[in-house]
Amino acid sequence: MKKALAIDVGGTKIYNTIINEKGEILTEVEKHHTPKTFNEIRALFEEIISKYENEVDVIAFATCGAVNNENNKILGSTGNIAAGYPEMDFNSLSKKPVFVENDANAAAWAEHVIGSSKGMPYSVMLTLGTGVGGGIILDNKLYKGKNGAAGEMHFKMRTDKHRKCTCGSYDCFEAYASGTGLKKTAEEISGDPDITTYDVIENNDRPMMKKILEKWQNDILEGIIGLANIFDPDCIVLSGSMAEFVDIDYLEKQANKEIVTTPFRVVKASAGNYSGMIGAALLALGVK
Amino acid sequence: MKKALAIDVGGTKIYNTIINEKGEILTEVEKHHTPKTFNEIRALFEEIISKYENEVDVIAFATCGAVNNENNKILGSTGNIAAGYPEMDFNSLSKKPVFVENDANAAAWAEHVIGSSKGMPYSVMLTLGTGVGGGIILDNKLYKGKNGAAGEMHFKMRTDKHRKCTCGSYDCFEAYASGTGLKKTAEEISGDPDITTYDVIENNDRPMMKKILEKWQNDILEGIIGLANIFDPDCIVLSGSMAEFVDIDYLEKQANKEIVTTPFRVVKASAGNYSGMIGAALLALGVK
Repeated sequence: MKKALAIDVGGTKIYNTIINEKGEILTEVEKHHTPKTFNEIRALFEEIISKYENEVDVIAFATCGAVNNENNKILGSTGNIAAGYPEMDFNSLSKKPVFVENDANAAAWAEHVIGSSKGMPYSVMLTLGTGVGGGIILDNKLYKGKNGAAGEMHFKMRTDKHRKCTCGSYDCFEAYASGTGLKKTAEEISGDPDITTYDVIENNDRPMMKKILEKWQNDILEGIIGLANIFDPDCIVLSGSMAEFVDIDYLEKQANKEIVTTPFRVVKASAGNYSGMIGAALLALGVK
Repeated sequence: MKKALAIDVGGTKIYNTIINEKGEILTEVEKHHTPKTFNEIRALFEEIISKYENEVDVIAFATCGAVNNENNKILGSTGNIAAGYPEMDFNSLSKKPVFVENDANAAAWAEHVIGSSKGMPYSVMLTLGTGVGGGIILDNKLYKGKNGAAGEMHFKMRTDKHRKCTCGSYDCFEAYASGTGLKKTAEEISGDPDITTYDVIENNDRPMMKKILEKWQNDILEGIIGLANIFDPDCIVLSGSMAEFVDIDYLEKQANKEIVTTPFRVVKASAGNYSGMIGAALLALGVK
């Protein structure tokens, strides 16, 4: 069975392990702090690859940033990683074939092949964390758009420039549905600028905290309704640390009442914490 | 060259003509009022088809309502046409092959093959009329979703249940970007429940009317930004009677400043008033 060296590149951590065609993690996951400079990141990649490349058939990166699969180049912004990172020449890092995919897209593919959207040709994954990631599977293929940048969950929740988004625009789904969005909603409802998401979640039996969580969840619901009307998908998959705090059954039931398209599922991701690496490995190994 | 008998079925009018593989209209377009009952609509279809079916290779319907291409059945609601209309057995209407597609999807296909999105693999068309129609072309194919209902432009502009939408939910793009949406926006800004879209458009040099049009156009802009971030398309095509009143150049320029995906065009539809029939004919004749 073929194997991939999978490397997950985030703004704060870099992980690596070896994964087979079944999506099974074969070696202990190694964790590194993401270095601050381009050269140090590149050196870390070289170190990991030189150590393992002889054991595998392909190198599979799951990375922050959108990826053009034609040249393995990163497109546009990549958040808080070293500024020069998009210039990385991934292809030159190994004598083995190198495959690069956006981490949210890779995770959506892992769900599609071995996770909770398995067997469903049309799915949209929303990763609710500090921000919101998106991955779209259409007709059993990862949807990338004209240049590989598709699946950015920056559609509007309001049109009155109420809340600044990390993308530079205002009022995107990410600015409401993310953990950061929950904190902002909590600030707005409580009037307390120091309130944390932890305060809200730990005290969710208190009326105000309940109200905050309901508002946050309602924004997620409204986003899901829009995506279901646009895509007519089999399911919407929710992943990420913040997905723990939504009522999946309620979201599915309520969204299905409000859509004009056809009934769909809302499910929690099941491919686990390393779904980015698993999905990148499966894509790199050509597993559908 | 092969030909299709094209029939456009709307809530108020039904049109028919003959169209060839180049998308050329070969006969004068016949216009009928849409009958009030299922049986009368079916009888009109039979009359049109019996008159022309011997001159054509295929019958091509562009209809209100979402269409499942596997069985030519209409899915879900169809607005103000006779209640039983979705039960129409299109396949039984002719001895020639019958093809049925949603009118907005068909129009998007006409733009893709002979209109303003020609040569662009990824496009989203928004038809701004009394309501808003949508058609999505991805990788040079009409995108239909799991059951054929995709492309409904019912994603949210607000999340506080401010404005009821025709779909039964609240605050959808259609409820703001349509002609009906412009009237609602005009009512809200002017405080005059009797104001018409005509009043606004005819008096667009007056400050209040200017403000109303700017708010309406900004809602369209916000919707376009969301779609561009989700799809990373080559272009967004605007069609329909209300598309006359937007500033296409401004929309393109401003949207490109705010997206996180890659540069895209905003263009006006160019396939003409009968693009629904043309697109249905091209799809029925297998022209890509």
